[in-house]
Amino acid sequence: MPASKGAPPGIVVDKLHIPRSIEAPAAEAEAGRLENVGRRSFLRRSGGLAGSALAAGAAGVSLAQAAPLAVPESNKAFGKPIPEDDYGVPSKFESHVRRRRTDVLKNRQNFSDWSMTPLQHQHGIVTPNGLIYERHHNGTPDIDPKTHKLVIHGMVKQPLEFTMDDLMRYPSVSRFYFMECSGNGLTDWLKAASTTVQQTHGLLSCAQWTGIPVSWLLDEAGLEPGAKWLLFEGADGSAHVRSLPLKKVLDDCMLAYASNGEMLRAENGYPLRLFVPGWEGNVCVKWLRRIKVGDQPWHARSETARYTDPMPDGMWRQFSFEMECKSVITRPSGGMNIAPGMHEIQGFAWSGNGRIRAVDVTTDGGRTWQEARLESPVFDKCLTRFRFPWNWTGGPANIASRAVDSTGYVQPTVQDLAKSRAIVGFVQHHNGVFPWSVSASGEVKNAIA
Amino acid sequence: MPASKGAPPGIVVDKLHIPRSIEAPAAEAEAGRLENVGRRSFLRRSGGLAGSALAAGAAGVSLAQAAPLAVPESNKAFGKPIPEDDYGVPSKFESHVRRRRTDVLKNRQNFSDWSMTPLQHQHGIVTPNGLIYERHHNGTPDIDPKTHKLVIHGMVKQPLEFTMDDLMRYPSVSRFYFMECSGNGLTDWLKAASTTVQQTHGLLSCAQWTGIPVSWLLDEAGLEPGAKWLLFEGADGSAHVRSLPLKKVLDDCMLAYASNGEMLRAENGYPLRLFVPGWEGNVCVKWLRRIKVGDQPWHARSETARYTDPMPDGMWRQFSFEMECKSVITRPSGGMNIAPGMHEIQGFAWSGNGRIRAVDVTTDGGRTWQEARLESPVFDKCLTRFRFPWNWTGGPANIASRAVDSTGYVQPTVQDLAKSRAIVGFVQHHNGVFPWSVSASGEVKNAIA
Repeated sequence: MPASKGAPPGIVVDKLHIPRSIEAPAAEAEAGRLENVGRRSFLRRSGGLAGSALAAGAAGVSLAQAAPLAVPESNKAFGKPIPEDDYGVPSKFESHVRRRRTDVLKNRQNFSDWSMTPLQHQHGIVTPNGLIYERHHNGTPDIDPKTHKLVIHGMVKQPLEFTMDDLMRYPSVSRFYFMECSGNGLTDWLKAASTTVQQTHGLLSCAQWTGIPVSWLLDEAGLEPGAKWLLFEGADGSAHVRSLPLKKVLDDCMLAYASNGEMLRAENGYPLRLFVPGWEGNVCVKWLRRIKVGDQPWHARSETARYTDPMPDGMWRQFSFEMECKSVITRPSGGMNIAPGMHEIQGFAWSGNGRIRAVDVTTDGGRTWQEARLESPVFDKCLTRFRFPWNWTGGPANIASRAVDSTGYVQPTVQDLAKSRAIVGFVQHHNGVFPWSVSASGEVKNAIA
Repeated sequence: MPASKGAPPGIVVDKLHIPRSIEAPAAEAEAGRLENVGRRSFLRRSGGLAGSALAAGAAGVSLAQAAPLAVPESNKAFGKPIPEDDYGVPSKFESHVRRRRTDVLKNRQNFSDWSMTPLQHQHGIVTPNGLIYERHHNGTPDIDPKTHKLVIHGMVKQPLEFTMDDLMRYPSVSRFYFMECSGNGLTDWLKAASTTVQQTHGLLSCAQWTGIPVSWLLDEAGLEPGAKWLLFEGADGSAHVRSLPLKKVLDDCMLAYASNGEMLRAENGYPLRLFVPGWEGNVCVKWLRRIKVGDQPWHARSETARYTDPMPDGMWRQFSFEMECKSVITRPSGGMNIAPGMHEIQGFAWSGNGRIRAVDVTTDGGRTWQEARLESPVFDKCLTRFRFPWNWTGGPANIASRAVDSTGYVQPTVQDLAKSRAIVGFVQHHNGVFPWSVSASGEVKNAIA
């Protein structure tokens, strides 16, 4: 240990009670000199760790022992104080991590628009609230929770009206679920129109949602005999409505008011939205103001002219609510450049019909598949992160993932999907296997075709 | 069904294809008149649902059937468009949900400060990134990840230096953990100094943290024989350092760069911090720039003059890292006013030594205790939410929670703690049972004494 030149007067310095200043950067500088001696080969080491999570393509720079450490300027300066009344925001160095509209499909004529989650920058399974994707049909209203009301009427014994204060006094439940727009991926069915995974898959997010099971309030109102469908209407300028079957609503639907620990953001339905686990995002009606109970669906515009699926025989299928089993590699993904060496392929898998049972990964365009590791927790109807070690030796490669859910359903290829659906126009429910190509120079590109 | 006065030309209106406008607010107004007929008595109904999650103190207003619904202004107006390049922020109606410094203990002389999580407003177990508590010793530095480096040196075979790019290429892990400052609650040991649970317990947050196990990088550097302790140093103006035993570091410590899906906020250590699951927050060194391997602790200022515990015999205990089992009721909590009726008591329980096994709740000042329901997931070293239905009939009450962890440890009372520690000055590690009083008029107050 060096002598304590910098120790304040009155501080006893010995081996057991050395003041911090001895180990501070200035003191370190006395100890010698640092030299970079080149990158260690992590490739050679990690090559022997087949399938291990330790496999790494990263490398530190070797340092000579007992050399002085460079002292960063931040160690020598005052930092910024915390504001008195604070809500934290991302570092200024993260300004590239933003929700974005797709660059491929623009739709600004009527405030019917959307913005997408930057999945290539997401760590873990939780999408931070500021990056949860949103789709709106007439902009975002600013709704005051003091005046907002929810009405339950129609085929009920007693119509009811609730204020937000009423609702917030109820017991609540909190559950982790993914949310996905049925139009996620519709720009990239048969040819590569988009660049990044934010553009191809970013109408997808995941959060811990808090709210009240709809069944509890229906129990208060009392269903009349014959009740089979419910209409949910938003308080936005489009008065967005969807019909849902009673069975699903009673099963697991929530009146959600919070995501990831805090009240919903305005663009995500503040102060109240319907949340329909595993089903397409547009049925999770935002700014929810009304639930009407009936005996048949209402066939609203969002159920006839929109959110339907074309069949090969020219008919259109209504009410295809479930978001079927799907997965995508987020790292490496479109727009990235990679270097030869070990990589941990990462991605998400999810299913509206259950848990993820397995994810397979190919790095040779589908000739061979190997099972990826699923990171816990693996929740029902929730994003599951998968990881797969890959030693990229530098030649052209084609990587993709294929998920299997707890029902045994295997994520199909687009070619498989085309057998049961007509892939024409803005087709919803694209859950096909999605490939990325890696060029010899390491450029990662959308390889759908 | 009413006729479709508002249907656009060319739309066929029948029972199976009714355009949305029929079910839109304007059409509803034709159907009759609404009347409030008074609040239903949820108390009578819920009284019979002993212990059920359905028990509710909330009430909707009954509506006459077939009456017109009031149409909110937001249904008649354009909403706001989403910005081109967007990061969402909370609704303007949620500006009261903020991190705050305590009003009780002010410490502004040297940029050594803190701000606290509003636990009374937290839903679920995830603390949103903007509200994760922070404690700093010399302000928040703005560190550019392009220039930030992490060094591993000391008793290692090969000292190493890593850029953030190096680290981000490593495989990673994502895990849900609580984080708590050892000083959480130090203002309220023997008398009620604080008002809200944000002030008494808000140096507590929970997130899904993503990073690299420290053991992986130590494996790269190679430990020399005799290595037993590690020093971690931050790149901030205080050059905050802590010593940690090798065993814990190898067990589960992470080099964390993300929380809840995105890179750490600057005040929480961007771009890199140590995360030490279950141990006091100040060892989770932020803005981490250096790991030095040694054979004994360094006894830095934060290990001698700070973050030590006074014993009854006048000695001070060093290195009491573990945050022991603890719980607190967040709803109702200090500063709230409640009305007689059914309430769902909610709160958090956590333990640095394992999972929460059970939480008991008393509503009569500790004379009787009943077991609360734990909401899943119940993770190791993570916040667990508990829920307990309570019919408050209006008299004065004293409510508190008591947690038991998977080691069998029972959260103690302050009186129990005082037998093994001297409660003098700014005493750390207050994990005592924490009571709230409810006055006859429903005012909830800090009842520690």
